[in-house]
Amino acid sequence: MVVKSQIKFIKSLQQKKYRNQHGKFVVEGIKVVKELMASHINAEVVYSTDVEFVEKHKDVAELISEADLKKISSLHTPNKVVGIFNIPTPQQIDTADWTVALDDVRDPGNLGTIIRLCDWFGIKTLLCSHNTVDCYNPKVLQATMGSISRVNIMYADLKTYFEGSAVPIFGAFMDGDVVYKEPMPKFGILVMGNEANGISNEIEALVTRKVSIPQFGSKTAESLNVATATAILLNEIKRSE
Amino acid sequence: MVVKSQIKFIKSLQQKKYRNQHGKFVVEGIKVVKELMASHINAEVVYSTDVEFVEKHKDVAELISEADLKKISSLHTPNKVVGIFNIPTPQQIDTADWTVALDDVRDPGNLGTIIRLCDWFGIKTLLCSHNTVDCYNPKVLQATMGSISRVNIMYADLKTYFEGSAVPIFGAFMDGDVVYKEPMPKFGILVMGNEANGISNEIEALVTRKVSIPQFGSKTAESLNVATATAILLNEIKRSE
Repeated sequence: MVVKSQIKFIKSLQQKKYRNQHGKFVVEGIKVVKELMASHINAEVVYSTDVEFVEKHKDVAELISEADLKKISSLHTPNKVVGIFNIPTPQQIDTADWTVALDDVRDPGNLGTIIRLCDWFGIKTLLCSHNTVDCYNPKVLQATMGSISRVNIMYADLKTYFEGSAVPIFGAFMDGDVVYKEPMPKFGILVMGNEANGISNEIEALVTRKVSIPQFGSKTAESLNVATATAILLNEIKRSE
Repeated sequence: MVVKSQIKFIKSLQQKKYRNQHGKFVVEGIKVVKELMASHINAEVVYSTDVEFVEKHKDVAELISEADLKKISSLHTPNKVVGIFNIPTPQQIDTADWTVALDDVRDPGNLGTIIRLCDWFGIKTLLCSHNTVDCYNPKVLQATMGSISRVNIMYADLKTYFEGSAVPIFGAFMDGDVVYKEPMPKFGILVMGNEANGISNEIEALVTRKVSIPQFGSKTAESLNVATATAILLNEIKRSE
């Protein structure tokens, strides 16, 4: 049985403020929970209605009723498990490799897709500005499909970090150099900007090379979505390796 | 004033069945409606609460009250205009150019992003299988950001079309040839598959070249989302031009 105070606690983890306060986040769905359990991320407790699952994971799993699952779930149709995990401590950035940095990306779906892209392209660290949407937001977790356990995600002040960094900083801009022109170096930082405003002025001032994806269609298409632009630029970085 | 029968008619256009029956679709939001009005797509009538807008577009615009706008809108917070447009007649496919074909893409956000990508990369025609989500679905229209007016979208039986076609048919597969290996031809068809199942067997049999985007990270990342994979492959096609 899940007691009232625990229900309240789990529900509170839907909010960033409480996630940061407790250093924990909540994940739903058998597939993603299993992926996280198999990763370096520590499970605090995993509630499940599935007897077999609980038997198999006795150390952290706890059997609950369908009624209790409904109480702690934020989904209309809860999917067997709700896991509480400890937010992992970020690892140091490997400056001999590529890092992706996000300057205030706000949409959970975009962040989730970008985490998945980092995983696919072997980008170890994703550096997020403090105003980027929280990666432990339930909508982000849903969009990452488990990739969140394989990418080191760090929130920091981009300006401070860039000022202390010696690696080339690439930024995506509408008016940058065509990205196909010159091969990409073996390491660096790729900065992607906010959905509506792009990269902020203070970060732009620290970018050492502005790149753009050329537009082949009519000049009326407004811009590429930040997640699709990240996909193309990561492919450009990796294809020149 | 919008009469009851008209409210019912507009609401019915939320469903594919009625859109096809009447050959019309409904769009909300001042920005997208304006883009469509400036395109080749014919507006039947545009309801608006904005006096200035209605004055400026007397030929098709009709002034309505906030209360009426709420009645015909499907949004929680309606955005000034609701436009009824005629579904355009698809144009013939230009076989001397690239065409993108979708084999049962089901997610409206993915289709919207792919339409926007076709617009960006100058792909004139998007050929959709009959089981691909309807491009006049309100969620698709929202995701296209107006690009729908600049891409020729056609629903057809892919198998029949491919069997009668002489151009190279490229398909995205997990086990295809690395796409960077050989330059892409000047024209062809790029087929992208369903989110869960990829390209169907009967379409796979007609594909003349299987391509894949190599995975650089741990082999655990499941797959790229269909929209990000389309972004990367269209970039590959266009960068070799």
